[in-house]
Amino acid sequence: MEFKSTLFGSAYYDEYMPYDRIDTDFQMMKDAGFNVIRIAESTWSTWEPSDNQYDFTHLHRMLDKATEYGISVIIGTPTYAIPPWLYKKYPDIMAVTAEGPLLYGHRQLHDITNPHFLFHAERIIRKLMDEVKDYDCVIGYQLDNETRAADAASSETQKLFVAELRKTYPDINEFNREFGLDYWSNKIDSWEDFPDIRGTINGSLSAAYKRFLRNRITEYLTWQASIIREYKRNDQFITHNFDYSWIGHSFGIQPLVNQFDAAKCMDIAGVDIYHPCKDELTGATIAFGGAVGRALKKDNYLVLETEAQGRTDWLAYKGQLRLNAYSHLASGALSVMYWHWHSIHNSFETYWKGILSHDLKANATYNELSAFRHEMLSIEDRIRGLKKESQVAIIVDNQSLVGIDEFPISDSSELDYNHILRWFYDACYEMNIECDLVSVEDTFDNYQMLIVPALYSASIGTLNKIKDYISNGGHALIGFKSGFSDEEIKVYADTEPYIISDAIGAHYDQYTNPKDVHITIDNKQYEVTEWMELLYNDDAKVIASYDHKYYKDYAAITCKDYGKGSATYIGCYFSKEGLKSVISSVTKKAGIDIPKIDYPIVKKTGINQYGRRINYYFNYSSDELSFVYDGRDGISLLDNSDIRSKDTVKLNDWDLIIIEENEE
Amino acid sequence: MEFKSTLFGSAYYDEYMPYDRIDTDFQMMKDAGFNVIRIAESTWSTWEPSDNQYDFTHLHRMLDKATEYGISVIIGTPTYAIPPWLYKKYPDIMAVTAEGPLLYGHRQLHDITNPHFLFHAERIIRKLMDEVKDYDCVIGYQLDNETRAADAASSETQKLFVAELRKTYPDINEFNREFGLDYWSNKIDSWEDFPDIRGTINGSLSAAYKRFLRNRITEYLTWQASIIREYKRNDQFITHNFDYSWIGHSFGIQPLVNQFDAAKCMDIAGVDIYHPCKDELTGATIAFGGAVGRALKKDNYLVLETEAQGRTDWLAYKGQLRLNAYSHLASGALSVMYWHWHSIHNSFETYWKGILSHDLKANATYNELSAFRHEMLSIEDRIRGLKKESQVAIIVDNQSLVGIDEFPISDSSELDYNHILRWFYDACYEMNIECDLVSVEDTFDNYQMLIVPALYSASIGTLNKIKDYISNGGHALIGFKSGFSDEEIKVYADTEPYIISDAIGAHYDQYTNPKDVHITIDNKQYEVTEWMELLYNDDAKVIASYDHKYYKDYAAITCKDYGKGSATYIGCYFSKEGLKSVISSVTKKAGIDIPKIDYPIVKKTGINQYGRRINYYFNYSSDELSFVYDGRDGISLLDNSDIRSKDTVKLNDWDLIIIEENEE
Amino acid sequence: MEFKSTLFGSAYYDEYMPYDRIDTDFQMMKDAGFNVIRIAESTWSTWEPSDNQYDFTHLHRMLDKATEYGISVIIGTPTYAIPPWLYKKYPDIMAVTAEGPLLYGHRQLHDITNPHFLFHAERIIRKLMDEVKDYDCVIGYQLDNETRAADAASSETQKLFVAELRKTYPDINEFNREFGLDYWSNKIDSWEDFPDIRGTINGSLSAAYKRFLRNRITEYLTWQASIIREYKRNDQFITHNFDYSWIGHSFGIQPLVNQFDAAKCMDIAGVDIYHPCKDELTGATIAFGGAVGRALKKDNYLVLETEAQGRTDWLAYKGQLRLNAYSHLASGALSVMYWHWHSIHNSFETYWKGILSHDLKANATYNELSAFRHEMLSIEDRIRGLKKESQVAIIVDNQSLVGIDEFPISDSSELDYNHILRWFYDACYEMNIECDLVSVEDTFDNYQMLIVPALYSASIGTLNKIKDYISNGGHALIGFKSGFSDEEIKVYADTEPYIISDAIGAHYDQYTNPKDVHITIDNKQYEVTEWMELLYNDDAKVIASYDHKYYKDYAAITCKDYGKGSATYIGCYFSKEGLKSVISSVTKKAGIDIPKIDYPIVKKTGINQYGRRINYYFNYSSDELSFVYDGRDGISLLDNSDIRSKDTVKLNDWDLIIIEENEE
Repeated sequence: MEFKSTLFGSAYYDEYMPYDRIDTDFQMMKDAGFNVIRIAESTWSTWEPSDNQYDFTHLHRMLDKATEYGISVIIGTPTYAIPPWLYKKYPDIMAVTAEGPLLYGHRQLHDITNPHFLFHAERIIRKLMDEVKDYDCVIGYQLDNETRAADAASSETQKLFVAELRKTYPDINEFNREFGLDYWSNKIDSWEDFPDIRGTINGSLSAAYKRFLRNRITEYLTWQASIIREYKRNDQFITHNFDYSWIGHSFGIQPLVNQFDAAKCMDIAGVDIYHPCKDELTGATIAFGGAVGRALKKDNYLVLETEAQGRTDWLAYKGQLRLNAYSHLASGALSVMYWHWHSIHNSFETYWKGILSHDLKANATYNELSAFRHEMLSIEDRIRGLKKESQVAIIVDNQSLVGIDEFPISDSSELDYNHILRWFYDACYEMNIECDLVSVEDTFDNYQMLIVPALYSASIGTLNKIKDYISNGGHALIGFKSGFSDEEIKVYADTEPYIISDAIGAHYDQYTNPKDVHITIDNKQYEVTEWMELLYNDDAKVIASYDHKYYKDYAAITCKDYGKGSATYIGCYFSKEGLKSVISSVTKKAGIDIPKIDYPIVKKTGINQYGRRINYYFNYSSDELSFVYDGRDGISLLDNSDIRSKDTVKLNDWDLIIIEENEE
Repeated sequence: MEFKSTLFGSAYYDEYMPYDRIDTDFQMMKDAGFNVIRIAESTWSTWEPSDNQYDFTHLHRMLDKATEYGISVIIGTPTYAIPPWLYKKYPDIMAVTAEGPLLYGHRQLHDITNPHFLFHAERIIRKLMDEVKDYDCVIGYQLDNETRAADAASSETQKLFVAELRKTYPDINEFNREFGLDYWSNKIDSWEDFPDIRGTINGSLSAAYKRFLRNRITEYLTWQASIIREYKRNDQFITHNFDYSWIGHSFGIQPLVNQFDAAKCMDIAGVDIYHPCKDELTGATIAFGGAVGRALKKDNYLVLETEAQGRTDWLAYKGQLRLNAYSHLASGALSVMYWHWHSIHNSFETYWKGILSHDLKANATYNELSAFRHEMLSIEDRIRGLKKESQVAIIVDNQSLVGIDEFPISDSSELDYNHILRWFYDACYEMNIECDLVSVEDTFDNYQMLIVPALYSASIGTLNKIKDYISNGGHALIGFKSGFSDEEIKVYADTEPYIISDAIGAHYDQYTNPKDVHITIDNKQYEVTEWMELLYNDDAKVIASYDHKYYKDYAAITCKDYGKGSATYIGCYFSKEGLKSVISSVTKKAGIDIPKIDYPIVKKTGINQYGRRINYYFNYSSDELSFVYDGRDGISLLDNSDIRSKDTVKLNDWDLIIIEENEE
Repeated sequence: MEFKSTLFGSAYYDEYMPYDRIDTDFQMMKDAGFNVIRIAESTWSTWEPSDNQYDFTHLHRMLDKATEYGISVIIGTPTYAIPPWLYKKYPDIMAVTAEGPLLYGHRQLHDITNPHFLFHAERIIRKLMDEVKDYDCVIGYQLDNETRAADAASSETQKLFVAELRKTYPDINEFNREFGLDYWSNKIDSWEDFPDIRGTINGSLSAAYKRFLRNRITEYLTWQASIIREYKRNDQFITHNFDYSWIGHSFGIQPLVNQFDAAKCMDIAGVDIYHPCKDELTGATIAFGGAVGRALKKDNYLVLETEAQGRTDWLAYKGQLRLNAYSHLASGALSVMYWHWHSIHNSFETYWKGILSHDLKANATYNELSAFRHEMLSIEDRIRGLKKESQVAIIVDNQSLVGIDEFPISDSSELDYNHILRWFYDACYEMNIECDLVSVEDTFDNYQMLIVPALYSASIGTLNKIKDYISNGGHALIGFKSGFSDEEIKVYADTEPYIISDAIGAHYDQYTNPKDVHITIDNKQYEVTEWMELLYNDDAKVIASYDHKYYKDYAAITCKDYGKGSATYIGCYFSKEGLKSVISSVTKKAGIDIPKIDYPIVKKTGINQYGRRINYYFNYSSDELSFVYDGRDGISLLDNSDIRSKDTVKLNDWDLIIIEENEE
């Protein structure tokens, strides 16, 4: 997709407003440089207050005003929150989980496979499309919202699961064998005996059910897209706001959705990125979130939601909102849209604050966003739709994530898949190595370096693909717990890591949770925590061994040249600082130049529509900082001044500089 | 109410005794100076062992012995614990909560709106009244016990809720609007579509249901009182033992009961006060608990329960039980009654120990209470029924409490409404400023100073009343989060704090959870924690600003003279020591003299029946302490010695002095 | 039981293997000196894949190979994990708990009182016995596996409970009285009114239900044994693998099983002992576990399960597996068997690792076990079937455990019954005092010293038995909370501790949770934590008083000569070091010689089949240590060298020496 201008705006709910102020709102948006709003997604009960009765008053009010004020509109299907009458009429619409049938109230607790739900969802989508499709201001459609399958496991839903299993495993004995069901007498002789999945203790079966639910989301979004395609104009796009795993804020990849699959039905990927600000603001989550956005369609992406004021403890320091907005653009975002226009006066997200506070007046947040927008519009021509080119890819994988959830590192550890992923990602981020994310189904031959964090579940095909990547000249950095089990989380009954161990030149058959164990890398000592594999070095170079009386004969990190490439294997967990040393050595092998600048100065770079390189340098700190400019001579876009290579550049706290390099 | 002598005694359960020792018990009570017991409240299954079969043997045994030994009796209705046969016959008597129907066993898990329960409750109350009403020794009746609504939410109970809502909101659209139900598609077009409240995510609706349950308790107690009034003599009183929020001990106001409303049907308020002893004993909870007791009927009150030995970790040091007993009297209590006579040998509260230990012999607790009673009887004429006169009132409010429960200060904070309330109360307590508590419906014009802690939910009427109080000469100290939402917890869509902001001379539209933020008051620095509002000073005097790079332009505490009075506003949370500085400045404005003595010397004062001022000074510490007597010349009642103003008085650890001032 | 050779082997599951490798496995076992495997216990669905259809292919494969390779087999009944078809056919087989009916999946969630379960369990046991009884290699049978009653409390199961109560209490009033049911109106007038036990708050009733479930396990195992006795040969034994309370590893006595009762139907007791290794390895749990094993049949015992690699964080240091294996033998074990042969590739216990890792090749664990086996075989004749003789017994008691669970030491404390038990046990262990465990029904007159930890629930008979033990010359060390309540957890309404207080020469009527309280023993000061009883010294010697302003007049530890023996009473909890001082003083009175060697050198001793004393000295540390040999002159068995009394012996880290004393 391409847009004439970077989209800038927010979700807007006329229907939530405590009094009529639609003109005030639109005028304030206009003043602040908004060119888009996102509407309609969560208010099914407003559009269809009772069964088959419709009222689109608020919808047309908003679309008419958007037209009048020249603001574009993204229409969301309203299906993520069902109206009370629908629940009353079909109580079985609510998901049945291990805790029993869920109660109505919260959004997204219905079962998206339920036929009653699907019937009514289709009807309201079609009604809505009839109402909106002819408005010029409507530029695109958002399917549902951060779709969930609600852990649905009613007997009806489970029947679909069994049907899917039967298709994959026509031979029930093969099924029993692959899932190891003879253990604790869980074996079935007939599909009719398949027991309630909610009680299972079989990690493979549990993981398969989670995958089944992820597939239902893909199917559901694809179905919504197909309906919308019957109505939409060619100039309108279909998107969805994908989100992330959540630890009080966006963090890693979303475990509950196969976003690579789900995005196939869309024209452009959208993401919702939330993160702390104030002293906790690092920009890493913005960068990681953007990498996910770029990965899904291998293209630029929309930021459909990010926080304005957000949660109480996130309220940004002066300058941070501006910094974040540029940071999204520097990652390749085609939009920066806020959740949401105004703070809500009731209900649930009352303290998930919008741009306007509850008093609905201009405030510091509104003023800073407005100032940012007007500033960026003056240089937008040079910076919009930045094309990114990364030399490093990181493999991300839902099934491996689930595998490590089923079989955690240790009882006490919080080191789950996403923390391992972010350990690698954040180390690169702080070294100013911009990374792409890839799935195991993607091609990654074009990257000089491939990072493989905890690829716990990997098919034989995937493992051979990685091995081929290396032998064909790629440089792989492979993390512990990779290549340990197959697609169904069945551990390989062979040398570990499976298949790739001879590329690595090391293997292991034992591991433990370390205590008082250290490793030394580049003459610095780091404590090994959480996990250590006792590596036998076969024919690799040992980068680090364990400093410990009983483990000193085992390797901790190895490196081997294999074919035309190399494989570096990390068998344990330690500090991010130590990891950076290892990454640095791999980049050298891969011939990748790392900027000499590092965090809290963050560099992002890309190519603008004129083929020129744009270099962003962000100061992610409360202190004034300097750095030596490492690009070619160019122009600082915001003040239109000349910058020469090697110039020392000063950045105020939470400030940035954007440099367009001169043509070669 | 007035009593000839301070009531002193305990709950007594002849029916729990492991062997017949009724004469031993009564003789021991008599020896210890007991003049009252409380009986009958929890043993319905003893009085009515099967449906409509009665056995009042134990009851008459106790009443006959009480008559014989000259001890008065308070009769409790037995309705807070239902008998097994009633549960077996009508299983639907048990409350249905979000976890489903509750199981029989614990007390107070039945639904007090259930018609079967009410039918049988009325019958046993009437039977009991028939048995007891003619005994001279019966001086009063206690309705139920610390009544609860058990989070009851069966579909029948919810119908009553919807009926109440329909009455308040005849227009369903007005209802949808006030509760913001269009959010997440919760809007209803017909009352029949009202979904199960147990699933709601709407804070306003959830708060309304909690209020509905509080109203059911008021209704239920009023109904019990009306039955008892059919039987009781004029010299007999009706009371109830109100309790407090619980954090391992009594703490703040009770969230689940509107005690101001519920007390209307009674003749005298009763309270149950429990608190740690040993090094944790401060007397603050006794004082706070007494302030609640005085507030409910604007009169003296009964302490119906306080601990004897209590929980294992509460066991008092020598002297503390005596200190506490006087402390209740100094707060205006007309009784000191213990839970309970003997430690129970089975069941649940086996380690909630009574006066006697399980061996049922005289012990250190019994001996200290007996000694106290004999000592106080020698001066009782001068100290009983003390009248209190406070210059400072603190507003307490259930709905604001619930509002902050629905929308907590932060995810991690334990700073709920009652902690904020006690922050203010305890600061005053430690400064020896005795406070009254008032509800928003009370008159508070007669107080020189009004403290308003976190009045999160406040009607326009209430806010105007506070503003008028100030403009008419009152001095208000208003805490953060006040005046933010209306009676239904809908946030005001206007300048905050709503209505009172111009009296305050400051307003805010943003707030956050502070980190590394400080304020300076009277040249001392305090860390701001948990919560801070970014105050714009309009026309007030700034008492403190935030010491922080990004917040330094905002005010933290302001003060403004308004009309004939003043308003001091505290926009953040910090240490109790800092708060004392602010309170001190407001008392100066209000012309209130604060004692120069402070905690751990605690001063309490009041007027006895002869119009003389009684000054108590308690040493709440394990050390010997001295203080300079700040009253007029008088007499130390316990040793009948003369005391002159400015005398230095020495107090042993956990000791006290009681001084009656001479006539002017 | 006696065996020609110490049994050495593991559980083995041919049916779990990812490919056919039965010869490889048996050859590897043979090479490592295995002489036994345990099979069949958990794979009911393999033997009976659908109702009444059988397939014993894997069973005969294993038995035939065992015969071929000369390896003995223990057959487990497969009843602890039911097949899916059985659950589908009779869903009511699953236990109904306070959380409702359990879902199928995990093992041991069925109700062992369910008639459908019992019918099918009997049928599969008989079918299995038919298949295996004629194999010579089958040496014994294991009943079920770590049997549980799954907190079963369906209405049918509760009927059995009420029937049991009615039998014990033909008079319902006596029942009400003993259980204190008038409290909170729980009294019943008719057994039909007995309410759902799942809701009870009555500690006595709750404890009685737990005892009822323990009795069901005894009944169930006895029933299985009776079936097997119909088939088994005389040379075959019946056993069961008893386990322990669990705190991430084996710890104290198992609360859910009355192992003394259940073992009566067996020929030999078996145990499952799991514990951490690495720096946490102390050997104490092996010793404690063995003491339980010896206690059940007053004889040597089988170790049916202990970890090979075990949990990830347990992976042993080099030398520890060998040390542990000898440690079991030194405690009197007749077998050392590992859970399990190979690590499992799917399901639930994937990371509860066996001898082989997932790659199924020889590894460090296999090699160490093999080396141990070959080493020990060279001296087996001298060490197998060691007979133990302890001078000290410790009373262990399920009902007291439950009593303290119902009424914990304090809200915050983790000091439950088993922690108190292990406090005593581990102090002895570290002093190298080998202890036996006894039940209250056992004879303990033959021990010089008796330790009574927290015997909270004790009948009058038991208390008199302890008193008689003392008066007849025994030396008792009695811990706090002993003799406080009767068999139904009803607190005695008399002087505490009941009955034994005059033997002790002290009593108490109050107690509390200490803070800043100390005691001094042998001139060393220890902090008192968790619990303290305020002891009145009647006519004992005060060993320690409380160092605290308000408790200084009370005794903390007393000692009294009574009759021909003595009673030492400990009224509070403090460090294990302090406890050792007290134990030391009691052993002196009892005339018991304590080794001068202490932990981390651990001494174990016993008599071999030739009547010679075998002394083991283990170094439970990572350091090289020396000790002075305290036995008579003898021979070091492992290197066949002479050792003389008083020789200084050096032990490498995690190494041991085994000395056979010369004949006197």
